[in-house]
Parts: sequence; structure tokens; C-alpha cells
Amino acid sequence: MDPSLVSQGHPYVPLDLHLPDYSPCLLSMSNIISVFAFSSLLIVSLIWIFSGGLKKRKVDRVLMCWWAFTGLTHMILEGYFVFSPEFFKDKSGFYLAEVWKEYSKGDSRYAGRDAGVVTVEGITAVLEGPASLLAVYAIATGKSYSYILQFAISLGQLYGTAVYYITAILEGDNFSSNTFYYYAYYIGANFSWIVIPSIIAVRCWRKICAAFRLQGSQTKKPKAH
Amino acid sequence: MDPSLVSQGHPYVPLDLHLPDYSPCLLSMSNIISVFAFSSLLIVSLIWIFSGGLKKRKVDRVLMCWWAFTGLTHMILEGYFVFSPEFFKDKSGFYLAEVWKEYSKGDSRYAGRDAGVVTVEGITAVLEGPASLLAVYAIATGKSYSYILQFAISLGQLYGTAVYYITAILEGDNFSSNTFYYYAYYIGANFSWIVIPSIIAVRCWRKICAAFRLQGSQTKKPKAH
Repeated sequence: MDPSLVSQGHPYVPLDLHLPDYSPCLLSMSNIISVFAFSSLLIVSLIWIFSGGLKKRKVDRVLMCWWAFTGLTHMILEGYFVFSPEFFKDKSGFYLAEVWKEYSKGDSRYAGRDAGVVTVEGITAVLEGPASLLAVYAIATGKSYSYILQFAISLGQLYGTAVYYITAILEGDNFSSNTFYYYAYYIGANFSWIVIPSIIAVRCWRKICAAFRLQGSQTKKPKAH
Repeated sequence: MDPSLVSQGHPYVPLDLHLPDYSPCLLSMSNIISVFAFSSLLIVSLIWIFSGGLKKRKVDRVLMCWWAFTGLTHMILEGYFVFSPEFFKDKSGFYLAEVWKEYSKGDSRYAGRDAGVVTVEGITAVLEGPASLLAVYAIATGKSYSYILQFAISLGQLYGTAVYYITAILEGDNFSSNTFYYYAYYIGANFSWIVIPSIIAVRCWRKICAAFRLQGSQTKKPKAH
């Protein structure tokens, strides 16, 4: 019998992925998503409320919410994955291990410790996570580096997502347990990190160009007035 | 006998890398490097001479040389690699195939078509290559997007280099035929794409911050004068 058709006692595809001592998911999908949604909503609400006293425009307050949410997701969720190569063995029901056991149904390269995925998640967790929290501070205090920092993180997120999908396609795009997990986890869960960084990158690009046009017009302006 | 110790008729490590119909290098290392050095010097000289008539500062002329050099390297050299999965079979002595046969001695993931390497080179050749030539134009014509474009490409180059090295380390860092090729090709040939993009990214970051500080001071300046 073809060894690739013999399951190794885990729910992931390819079936012959070697995961010794795999321990099945203990939390349900709805449990995992509820905790994530509730925590995210809590963070966003807190940032929204506290930023109300900063005399900031709504768009800046929304951006602060995004950077706090994405920064903590990078640092906590993705940070745990990066530094926990054996999460799939966890028997304690620890939430972060359960997240990645569940997400691996949409992309088994997580459980399988694919070098490309670990690299992208590593850069995201270690560099982009803290940088996102710095962006909250930069917007709150109106720093001159606010736009270029947001642009840099957004571009990093887009580059990471590009590497994530292109490597999957080049390796056969066959890492999902079924079509539902493919669209819900592999595509759906990452979709925000394509759309939102694109919008922010374009906005920052425009703001930066506008600042240079102003600078240019100041320099060229005749001195007599 | 351990199959990993049986060479497959090619000069690359790991020895058991499967490269059917591999055709040995026809050009010598010094030939390959001379052509690259001569072509690069020609491009750089042409840009330096023509930019002399543009009333640009020396730093801008140096940057135009760099962007022309790196852009053409990305598009021609790396572009050929991305779209030529069977370059190692080339028997004609075609220069670009010879380049990658030779470079694979420093990193066999090129001949082996590693997904991470192909992804990074694909993004570099298809997006960063043309963007680099756009940067030459943007500097020459003093566009307001000049700094943010240069920053974006430099960050992309740095992200790509990070993915390149981190995936290699995670996969065992054993892709060089020997120590000489490891340091000359794998480290040496990529070194410029760490140092120069870092310098340019820092410079652009500072210029952009300065533009926003000026904008801020203009907005806050009392109107009476």
C-alpha cells in the first residue's frame, strides 16, 4: 500500500506527515475562535476608549486599534508557534497549542515545521509584533516616523503573506485537511493581512509623497513676500 | 552504503540531490565573474556619465548607479533563474545558466529548486527589479515618491535576504560544496544586498521623518508674520 495513504494518527494532510506523539485537539473550533474573538474585541475596545481622550481623528484611532490587535496577535499567537516546535504534542489543552493544532488543519506546514513558514512567522513575531505596538505609540504621540513605520510593517506583512502563499503553491498546495479548512483557515484567516496592510501601505505612501511635495514647494517658493 | 554519500554526478552538496541530466559547468569561475564585473561596470559608468548632466548631487548619482545595477541584476540574472527550472541541464554554455550552475556550488538550493529560494527570487525579479529601474527614473526626475520607493525596495531586499538565510539555517545550513564556496558565494555574493539596502533604508527613513517634521512645524507655525 502507498505509505502516503496511511494516516499517522493525526487529522492533517499529507496523511504521511510524521508527527510522533501527536495529541488530538482538546478544544473545539468554536471555543478557539470565541476566545480569540473575545480577546481581540477586548483589546480593540480598550484602545478605542483610551484613544478617545487623545484628540485624534477617527482614522488614527482605528489604526491604533489595528496595530494593537495585529501586534499582540503577532507576538502572542505567532510568537508561541515560532518558539514551540512541539506544540502538537501538548496534552494540557493549553490554548495557544490548541490554536495551532486547529490551524494546521488548514495548513499542515505549521505542525510539520516547514522552514518557510517558521521563517515568516519568526520575522513577523520578533520584528513586526513589537514594531506594531510601537506604531500605536507613534500614532498616539504624533511622531514624525509614524507613517514610515506603519508603511514598513505593512510591507513586511505583505511580503510575509506573499512568501507564505507562493511557497505553498510551489510545494503543491496540498496542506489542507479539506476544502472547508482550506478556505476558512488557510485563505480566510490570512485575508485581513492582505487587505488591511495594502490599504495602510497605500495611505502611508500618499501621505509621504504629500509631505515631500510640500517640502519641495517650500524650497522652491520665492523668498519675497 | 548510505545513499546520501553517493554522488549523483554533480558537484553539489548534499551529494544525493537528484538532478537528472545535469550538464557540467562549461565556463570557468573567472570567466563568469569577469563578464558580470565588466557588464556591471559598464552600466554603472553609463549611468554615472549620463547623470552628470542632471544637476544632481553625487549621492543621488551614486544611488542611480546602484538602482540600475541592482535592478538589472534582479531582472536579468535572477529573472532567468526564476523562469528556468532546468538551467542545470543546459549544454550550450549559455552565460546565465552557467552563472546559476556555478552559484549552486555555494547554495545547492538553486539547482534543487527549493521553494523558499524560488519564492524570494521570484518576488525580487518580478517586483523589485522593475521597481529599482523606476527608482533610477524617480531620482533623476526628483519625484515626490523617490524616497518611499527606495525604502520599499530596500526593505523588500532585506526581507528576502532574511528569508534566504533563515530558511537555510532551519534546513541545516548544508548546501555548500565546500568552505570556499560557502564564504565566496553564499555569504560574499549576498553581502552587498544586506549592507547597501540597510544604509539606503536608514537614509530614506531619516529623510521622510525630516519631511514630516517640516510639515508639522509649518502647520503649527503662527500665521502672523
